[in-house]
Amino acid sequence: MASEKTLFEEDIANQKNEKPAPKRRRTADEMATKQREISVSEFFTKNRHLLGFDSPLKSLLTAVKEAVDNSLDACEEAGILPELLVEIQQVNEKHYRMIVEDNGPGVVKEQIGKIFGKLLYGSKFHKLSQSRGQQGIGISAAGMYGQLTTGKPVRIVSRTSARKKPIEIFMGIDTAKNKPEIHSEENIEWDKKHGTRIEIEMEAKHQKGVRSIDMYLKQTAIANPHLTLHYIAPGEEKITYERNVRVLPPETEEIKPHPHGVELGRLIAMLKNTNCRSLSGFLQEEFCRVGPKVAKNIISGAAAGLTEKSYPTRIARGAASSLHDSIQAAKISSPPTTCIAPIGEELILKGLKKEIEADFYVAATRPASVYRGNPFLIEAGIAYGKPGGVGLEVEEESGRIKKRKSKVDVTQDLVGAGDDPARLLRFANRVPLQYQQSACAINKGIIGTNWKSYGLTQPRGSLPIAPMVIFVHIASVWVPFTSESKEAIASYDEILKEIKLALRECGRKLGIHIRKGKRIKREFDKRSHIEKYIPHIGVALQDILDLTNDDRDNTVETLEDVLHKSRKF
Amino acid sequence: MASEKTLFEEDIANQKNEKPAPKRRRTADEMATKQREISVSEFFTKNRHLLGFDSPLKSLLTAVKEAVDNSLDACEEAGILPELLVEIQQVNEKHYRMIVEDNGPGVVKEQIGKIFGKLLYGSKFHKLSQSRGQQGIGISAAGMYGQLTTGKPVRIVSRTSARKKPIEIFMGIDTAKNKPEIHSEENIEWDKKHGTRIEIEMEAKHQKGVRSIDMYLKQTAIANPHLTLHYIAPGEEKITYERNVRVLPPETEEIKPHPHGVELGRLIAMLKNTNCRSLSGFLQEEFCRVGPKVAKNIISGAAAGLTEKSYPTRIARGAASSLHDSIQAAKISSPPTTCIAPIGEELILKGLKKEIEADFYVAATRPASVYRGNPFLIEAGIAYGKPGGVGLEVEEESGRIKKRKSKVDVTQDLVGAGDDPARLLRFANRVPLQYQQSACAINKGIIGTNWKSYGLTQPRGSLPIAPMVIFVHIASVWVPFTSESKEAIASYDEILKEIKLALRECGRKLGIHIRKGKRIKREFDKRSHIEKYIPHIGVALQDILDLTNDDRDNTVETLEDVLHKSRKF
Repeated sequence: MASEKTLFEEDIANQKNEKPAPKRRRTADEMATKQREISVSEFFTKNRHLLGFDSPLKSLLTAVKEAVDNSLDACEEAGILPELLVEIQQVNEKHYRMIVEDNGPGVVKEQIGKIFGKLLYGSKFHKLSQSRGQQGIGISAAGMYGQLTTGKPVRIVSRTSARKKPIEIFMGIDTAKNKPEIHSEENIEWDKKHGTRIEIEMEAKHQKGVRSIDMYLKQTAIANPHLTLHYIAPGEEKITYERNVRVLPPETEEIKPHPHGVELGRLIAMLKNTNCRSLSGFLQEEFCRVGPKVAKNIISGAAAGLTEKSYPTRIARGAASSLHDSIQAAKISSPPTTCIAPIGEELILKGLKKEIEADFYVAATRPASVYRGNPFLIEAGIAYGKPGGVGLEVEEESGRIKKRKSKVDVTQDLVGAGDDPARLLRFANRVPLQYQQSACAINKGIIGTNWKSYGLTQPRGSLPIAPMVIFVHIASVWVPFTSESKEAIASYDEILKEIKLALRECGRKLGIHIRKGKRIKREFDKRSHIEKYIPHIGVALQDILDLTNDDRDNTVETLEDVLHKSRKF
Repeated sequence: MASEKTLFEEDIANQKNEKPAPKRRRTADEMATKQREISVSEFFTKNRHLLGFDSPLKSLLTAVKEAVDNSLDACEEAGILPELLVEIQQVNEKHYRMIVEDNGPGVVKEQIGKIFGKLLYGSKFHKLSQSRGQQGIGISAAGMYGQLTTGKPVRIVSRTSARKKPIEIFMGIDTAKNKPEIHSEENIEWDKKHGTRIEIEMEAKHQKGVRSIDMYLKQTAIANPHLTLHYIAPGEEKITYERNVRVLPPETEEIKPHPHGVELGRLIAMLKNTNCRSLSGFLQEEFCRVGPKVAKNIISGAAAGLTEKSYPTRIARGAASSLHDSIQAAKISSPPTTCIAPIGEELILKGLKKEIEADFYVAATRPASVYRGNPFLIEAGIAYGKPGGVGLEVEEESGRIKKRKSKVDVTQDLVGAGDDPARLLRFANRVPLQYQQSACAINKGIIGTNWKSYGLTQPRGSLPIAPMVIFVHIASVWVPFTSESKEAIASYDEILKEIKLALRECGRKLGIHIRKGKRIKREFDKRSHIEKYIPHIGVALQDILDLTNDDRDNTVETLEDVLHKSRKF
């Protein structure tokens, strides 16, 4: 038994003769009386920063985001081209009312309480398909935050069809029990045929600029070209972002888990809970990409007396472990990618060109890939430089070109000055991400890309320094966020790799553009040199060869022509 | 109604004649059938990266951390000087067994299932006092991860006193119900008089270096000088970190919420649930720092017909809101700081000196402060430069001094080379934080501090570049982490401010040291100039004044003396 040298030996020596004085003794029995269950609502009330409700400014944005996510998901699922109204009203100095109204399918009366007043309740968690919401927390948490800070209930108006009456519900949430508390419920008049309207009053702060609701809605419009969005900021007129495509994104399919992404413990639970009566049937029924042949291969690969007819619920842990190994070893095709709907290079380019003034644009959509059995797909885009070669100029002289405006304009503000780091536009399932950039896999992917090889400057461990906007979108059936507030993507290796590959595709094209820019500048320098010195050569030739002035001028002209042509410009 | 210009007008034009084709129509009723409750265990299984169980490497560290946190908390609460064993055994290529054993108070039989097999269960969530654990998630999540990846149960051995028999339990967790599943339970022999031992087998990876278990345990020893810790890495001999103080950290008190940190919604809930029968009694009973006088002031400040005798449960929302305003406006002393136990400047300095070789050390403990009603306290420390003036040299020449060793030594690795950013040691309630540095308020506080004014180089938006370790500890009754994995501190303004103030205190002293170093270097240069030129002056004087050689040497000596003295060195 090797013992490392004790720390701070002199202390030990000093204290050797002291007996430790047990100042207090709480026994295990006493401690047991303090143990209690914690309701998930209590947990998130105390940890509300985990959900994005830490500051008044951020809370308002988070609430809008959760409501808009829900509205867009509902419209798309119902096959309705979404038209949304977002309105922010100032109630008093510290309180604002957030209103989000959609033309979606509405919510049936019985479900309204749970959907808007119970954390961890929803339809998206248990299925594998691409959607904005996935946790069943967000919108209830927004109402909970409103109740916590103002004591006021949430107002919901919903209508599921023109034949049904609209319903108005005022409700709160019982945080100790994580249950909705319906205050009132009645039928009202509403001019919408179907849709949902939510109103939450909350302690908040409203301002423009980076990470504002304005910026978030603008980015939402970029990533959702099928959306018409009306926005009324406090005391301002309505702004409308009209949709620019009249078709919904391609419908995505719900998929079953891919065998390679299933952990042993989950496999055991699935075997226990299945209704299938044979192992072969179980494998084909519960997973994607498993047909009779693959099932047979898997089962024969498992060395534990398993047959195709083994009864799933009777398979013991040891046999399941062997089955799991065999699944991992089996050749199984990648999951279907019909469950993912990318935005597409064309629409990314259009969005960037429309919203960001630059002199070079490029976009790339990667093929789908898989992390932990979940299909995902990365898209990237770059808008580089200022029209009129500012990008080039900045790059050569690294001087500050762009003056900051005192009042930030959302469009203008997207591309930074030449000595600022590149700006990022991060999206997950078409939802813009605004906070926690430094914790995000997208940020890490950009930092981990060698931008110097594309002609940009990049300090070690930093974003490239350039007048540039980098757009990255992850679409997945399950986006792994670093917290419940869904602000940053967790850095799974597979995701990081795909982000870098997408960036590299864009980077290579950007590099060609930048090198061309540099060559043009060099050539331009040469040209001016030629134009500067040729006349002197003319004079010298006139002297030597005794030319007339006309001959001299002709010679100079010819020389310039020849030299310019030889530059291959 | 102002409408912003439509996006991509040409598209709209092209598509004007197309009718949107509703491809699918799912009604609200159909969607309602898909709505389901999500168990908190299911939620965290799917989101296990939120708890720190994303990669095999990190999962093992997280599990050790959760178990050690629990053991230390239990020992301190019971008044026992903690002695822990941490052992990692390799089971097969991919599976490891983690064992953590303590000499704590043990856990009573009835509680073992829930404590180790139910998420959101514990004693620390509902009270305001400083402890390592606070959520009631960690250790159950570790067991859940083990079960998920290996299908194997967790083994718990516990004994609450020498008079009671030790008990051994094998258990799993039913994730769909978030309930423990006891597989077996029996009395066994155990040589400990009291304590708890937990064993979890899991898919894992073990390695040394940065963010390793070795590093984590070493840092735990720095921040917990009262702990004796034995560690057995796979295939290695036991290492022991002996305790260097034989007294527990000062006992911290549980406090009641501070009135200024209570939101309106929470106040309403507290009024509803209290057993007090008068408003004055309620205020004095349920909050800290409220006596009869303060209660009277608050109540008279509320303009809603409230009296000291108002019955709390009958106070309506409007009156509660007025009460809340009055509370916010009232002068109330800061919360008591007896609920927080700092490590203290002396022990921080000792810890740094023992573990990190440097030539300058400084530490500062700030007075307690408050965020959202929760008392907290920041401590910082700096170890700067390499002995023998390497720090100075690096600073002047910014050359690479330290060669990296091929095999990382945890102690050596703490101070980086001179052109690397400063290394951080982050702690929360004495627990080392190893991941998510960039998302942490500590990181932001360091970046937001102007290190140039202390003579260091610091690129914009980056850590200072120096051979330096920066230690920051936050102690609080409720540490706001950015995720359940407790890896980074959320950036509340008050916390960020205190971090910067603590760093500034250290920075100023560091600045004096660095400037002194620079002055020494300048003086040294001057000295060598004097020594170089004085002899020549001597020769010149000999020439001019016709001195003897002896006279010349004497003059030179005198001159050197005079000049050196005049340098005030």
